[in-house]
Amino acid sequence: MKLRYKSENLKLRLGKSLAFEGAMSIEKLQRYREQMRTELDKVVDFWQKYSHDTQYGGFFTCIGKDGKIYDELKYVWLQGRQVWMYCRLYRTMERFNKPEILEAAKSGGAFLRRFARIPNSGSPWKCAFCLTRDGKALKVQRTIFSECFYVMAMDELARVTGDKDMQAEAAQMMDQLVHWVRVDPSGLGKPQLSGDTPVCSMAVPMMLLCLVQQLTEARSGEEVDKYREVGGWCVKQILQHLQRGGTAILESVSSEGKELPGCEGRLQNPGHALEAGWFLLQYGLENGDQELQRTAVDKFMEIPFLTGWDKEHGGLLYFLDVDGYCPTQLEWSMKLWWPHCEALIAYLMAYSHTKEPALLERFSQVYDYTFSHFSDAENGEWFGYLTQQGKVTLDFKGGPFKGFFHVPRCLYMCEKILDSILNKQET
Amino acid sequence: MKLRYKSENLKLRLGKSLAFEGAMSIEKLQRYREQMRTELDKVVDFWQKYSHDTQYGGFFTCIGKDGKIYDELKYVWLQGRQVWMYCRLYRTMERFNKPEILEAAKSGGAFLRRFARIPNSGSPWKCAFCLTRDGKALKVQRTIFSECFYVMAMDELARVTGDKDMQAEAAQMMDQLVHWVRVDPSGLGKPQLSGDTPVCSMAVPMMLLCLVQQLTEARSGEEVDKYREVGGWCVKQILQHLQRGGTAILESVSSEGKELPGCEGRLQNPGHALEAGWFLLQYGLENGDQELQRTAVDKFMEIPFLTGWDKEHGGLLYFLDVDGYCPTQLEWSMKLWWPHCEALIAYLMAYSHTKEPALLERFSQVYDYTFSHFSDAENGEWFGYLTQQGKVTLDFKGGPFKGFFHVPRCLYMCEKILDSILNKQET
Repeated sequence: MKLRYKSENLKLRLGKSLAFEGAMSIEKLQRYREQMRTELDKVVDFWQKYSHDTQYGGFFTCIGKDGKIYDELKYVWLQGRQVWMYCRLYRTMERFNKPEILEAAKSGGAFLRRFARIPNSGSPWKCAFCLTRDGKALKVQRTIFSECFYVMAMDELARVTGDKDMQAEAAQMMDQLVHWVRVDPSGLGKPQLSGDTPVCSMAVPMMLLCLVQQLTEARSGEEVDKYREVGGWCVKQILQHLQRGGTAILESVSSEGKELPGCEGRLQNPGHALEAGWFLLQYGLENGDQELQRTAVDKFMEIPFLTGWDKEHGGLLYFLDVDGYCPTQLEWSMKLWWPHCEALIAYLMAYSHTKEPALLERFSQVYDYTFSHFSDAENGEWFGYLTQQGKVTLDFKGGPFKGFFHVPRCLYMCEKILDSILNKQET
Repeated sequence: MKLRYKSENLKLRLGKSLAFEGAMSIEKLQRYREQMRTELDKVVDFWQKYSHDTQYGGFFTCIGKDGKIYDELKYVWLQGRQVWMYCRLYRTMERFNKPEILEAAKSGGAFLRRFARIPNSGSPWKCAFCLTRDGKALKVQRTIFSECFYVMAMDELARVTGDKDMQAEAAQMMDQLVHWVRVDPSGLGKPQLSGDTPVCSMAVPMMLLCLVQQLTEARSGEEVDKYREVGGWCVKQILQHLQRGGTAILESVSSEGKELPGCEGRLQNPGHALEAGWFLLQYGLENGDQELQRTAVDKFMEIPFLTGWDKEHGGLLYFLDVDGYCPTQLEWSMKLWWPHCEALIAYLMAYSHTKEPALLERFSQVYDYTFSHFSDAENGEWFGYLTQQGKVTLDFKGGPFKGFFHVPRCLYMCEKILDSILNKQET
């Protein structure tokens, strides 16, 4: 596919004052906000109703279309994400500042602290990937993501409860994570093989950048300066994935920031690039870095849409090969919920800062596809997995990789952004 | 889905003499044989033309729809399988008894012997899963399958070349495999976790049974008696996967042969059950075990069809949940080439021994779907991955899991079986 790159057409006007097209736009934005708010309430209800394990603590995440638990395993990523999301809602949205939300978050946090880490794994911080209902370790990954979501959960929970020990625990695990990523990965348990050259996966600096934003928010001091250095490193690492003269975002590159050979080197993941896009835009805004803001929007948000949007059936494809070969991932042509969540956040955030109508149109286009295909009006929450043609093909609401995270984070962030746009407009 | 189990309707007449329905049937069988033969020739041509790495030895397996190599990685499973398949064709089919076939097999064998095993992995027999083009280890799995295909390749290559050292090497690795499976799996590198109870996956005894058949064919003596004991154990293990009063074949059971909780316990893999079916039928025929022959046909071939055949779109679904929940594998509803290959072998083998017309009809039904959907008349070889609706969704001919194995083994075995039916008929 030929990339028609048109950053100039977007005529980005970063930092410019509000410039609405009139009453129609306000009404449209108000409708979006109303929809986001209603949907968020329904999604929170769904998980409160079905996911809490009142016997062992923590959360069930394998939840069928109508709320029925079809597997009791507890995935550490999803436990951590749900704790974080409950706490963030509790702390920053008045209507969720309710004891039952806090209690559920605390139960999840206690479950994680008690069971997530694996004794005798060589590091006191290595966490399991998957636990039995009663907390026995079942699987461990040789990556950092269980630990990342543990940090995210503990820091946000500590912000809500004021528990300084918990905050310190999150900080210590963060130090271990940075060590694994930047100094020595051997503690993760991957065997050293002769042909296994280091590969930089975009997920790693993205995840660390997300943690830096979590750990530095409204804080200052030496610890924060340390994280800022990590944040700067993450941004540089993410920017290395912009390849081919700025025309492609590749999921994996070499440790020197060069393109890798074969399928691995050519892989594009539009949802991931869009998520990186709003992480970078947020970082650029916080640090007054206009060039980074521009790159975030012009490259990380524009390219994945041009390459990843399915012109025939609508929706974002899951994987693509930059040279047009067929990806080897069996699910490459499926439409998954989370890239659409990330796209909604990205385009709305970009619009709110640039006021560029083209970005609002982009948001509308993704919004229409998303709400008409993923959201389940009958039983609440969203389906996660569609065929290329847009038909639901896995009908559960929660699974090993779909929990209480991407959907509510998207709805929460979109509601917040719309609030801020509309409040400015109304004053 | 309710299981309508109708073994009685099949009216199996094991061991009965031939009873053709007349000239129509013979013509039909002749047409099938002609198609199998032509297709096998085309498939062998395709891999001879595109897959040989004349520079480093071994085989490319990531091959696009028109023969173009899109990745140079070498997967040990697929290297071993291609060596085996070439040797089997060379040894048992006159038209493939050609020096270029033998040379290609030898090149693959030399590549495997030189590069597949991982030094310092704790066992001299542990093999990599994936190698670079020039043979550096890139990935290792904590399972036995790379090693199994190594054994299969070396034993068949030794049969062709008469290399006794190579045969002994295969036997030694087999001993290690049996030790890992039956005595102590710790050498495979899986960490011991508190919640990780032993699980019996059907793939393991199936694979070992396949190796037992490989290593005992036309041989006798002490070594063979040892393998026969292993074979008997494998059959018992496979039969444990027949659960729920003989109405379901489950992919994983506990080490006590009981159903496991959750998704893992409920998973059905129709293609795998059918493959197990013809392994068991073959073993039952070799050992004169009529009860096993009946179980192979009535259960391992009948149940997967009743549960796995897609009544709306045709073809065999990839995964199913025995209680009708949606599987969590994203590809569950896709149609893959290899279950159809296994089904063709299974039904034709069962028909050739029972002469039950219902089994030939079953074969015809699978044949019609398979040849009209997977076979590529334009560029040769078969597509591997279709949507539920039967549309090609990954258009390559070879990939990380699709090599020169299931398609040619199916065509080869079907041709052989049809030869034997028709030769008996013609004499």
